[in-house]
Amino acid sequence: VLSATESDRVRVVLVNSRNPLNIGAAARAMSNFGFSRLRVVHPYLVAFQEAKSAVNAGPILTEAEQFEQLPEAVADCSLVVGTTAGARRELEEPLSSLEDAAAIIRARLCSGSKVAILFGSEKVGLSNHDLSHCQLLLRIPTRTDHPSMNLGQAVAIVLYEFVRQTDTESEPETASALNRPLATAGEKERLIALLLQALSFGGYPHRTTPATIEAKVRRLVRHLALTPSDLHHWLGLLRQLLWKLRATQRPPQE
Amino acid sequence: VLSATESDRVRVVLVNSRNPLNIGAAARAMSNFGFSRLRVVHPYLVAFQEAKSAVNAGPILTEAEQFEQLPEAVADCSLVVGTTAGARRELEEPLSSLEDAAAIIRARLCSGSKVAILFGSEKVGLSNHDLSHCQLLLRIPTRTDHPSMNLGQAVAIVLYEFVRQTDTESEPETASALNRPLATAGEKERLIALLLQALSFGGYPHRTTPATIEAKVRRLVRHLALTPSDLHHWLGLLRQLLWKLRATQRPPQE
Repeated sequence: VLSATESDRVRVVLVNSRNPLNIGAAARAMSNFGFSRLRVVHPYLVAFQEAKSAVNAGPILTEAEQFEQLPEAVADCSLVVGTTAGARRELEEPLSSLEDAAAIIRARLCSGSKVAILFGSEKVGLSNHDLSHCQLLLRIPTRTDHPSMNLGQAVAIVLYEFVRQTDTESEPETASALNRPLATAGEKERLIALLLQALSFGGYPHRTTPATIEAKVRRLVRHLALTPSDLHHWLGLLRQLLWKLRATQRPPQE
Repeated sequence: VLSATESDRVRVVLVNSRNPLNIGAAARAMSNFGFSRLRVVHPYLVAFQEAKSAVNAGPILTEAEQFEQLPEAVADCSLVVGTTAGARRELEEPLSSLEDAAAIIRARLCSGSKVAILFGSEKVGLSNHDLSHCQLLLRIPTRTDHPSMNLGQAVAIVLYEFVRQTDTESEPETASALNRPLATAGEKERLIALLLQALSFGGYPHRTTPATIEAKVRRLVRHLALTPSDLHHWLGLLRQLLWKLRATQRPPQE
């Protein structure tokens, strides 16, 4: 159901992968299902080099992009989706079944948005910090007794679900709710930065730390489905507030 | 949708597998999705022993049954399904999409039949002779340019499709992800009021009036699809900003 253009808007992002075979398997599944943009964040370098130099490493691996930090790897995406076994964490984001999440993701791809799908490391999955960058979490329906999947298999199943639907029509109501082009994660980071600057003026309230404030603000801003134009206006308003805070922050003795 | 009894009627049959990692990966996916009966036909013996003796080989591998010939391995099954990339052969059996085949297979399992799903070797897939034992052939919707999947990934996707349809009836997940109950216009007015208070501190920027600011802020806030809980958090953040503005707004001469 996805066109080549739509598939090209998907970024498969492997975070902290340590096994070259899994990186290679992820790339192979991408090729099987027509996706090409692979990104790796803070990979175990030997593993990444080994995967890249494998005999049958195709263009997906050789053109894979490497990032030191997650925010850079998702900066151009307006929907960031985390994958999780969903068993052990207190999750703050809505947790969707893979099937439901795929419907949302397809609608976004059709409306022109770039979408990042995050897969965590083999051992521990995505960290809570990684998840704080996501607007949507999906779970593959594994058994609760053995929820954790092999990385290459998880990537394959998720991508299969994206291309699976040959006969269902393209959920028009989801599409209409979502088909405005939306601000990217990178653009939203500017809003987050300004908010944090404003909130840090004169110190934080009792019992809060910069880290908890940042996590909270990021989560709230991630939830906002902002058009680039609206985002621009919000940035303007925040700059006004910051200006006021600074203007009144002159030492009183002057 | 499958009960434990129904899942127990599935036999995953690996024919001529040569790679222990793939046999292990197949077993892991079976465990993830609640299937337990693994059969290997004429495996490369070293590979099978290696897979069985891997550190994390669970009961599925240690209890896997080994057969010299395919007919013995499917003898107790009343439906034998072959998996194929479907590209190169003159196929005599009807070739179904995975999705359609899964519906047929689930119906058979529910009616008490045992079903064998055959996966071929990594290099060449199922032979024509193997396929002659099948009543149904299924194809995973891979690209025609790169149809051939990794064995472990193919097993994972097929089993996922069997268990996938647990939540098609109960659509509330999507609802929770997207049609979450949203803050009312009245609740949003509180956000607007706080924003306007903050923005009015120390006067407005050049060429703006309270009316134009209010119209702009209201439009921006109306665009936000906020849940009541998120709205509550935003109100809290704005109250912090207002407090900071007031705290620094004491007359300088005091």
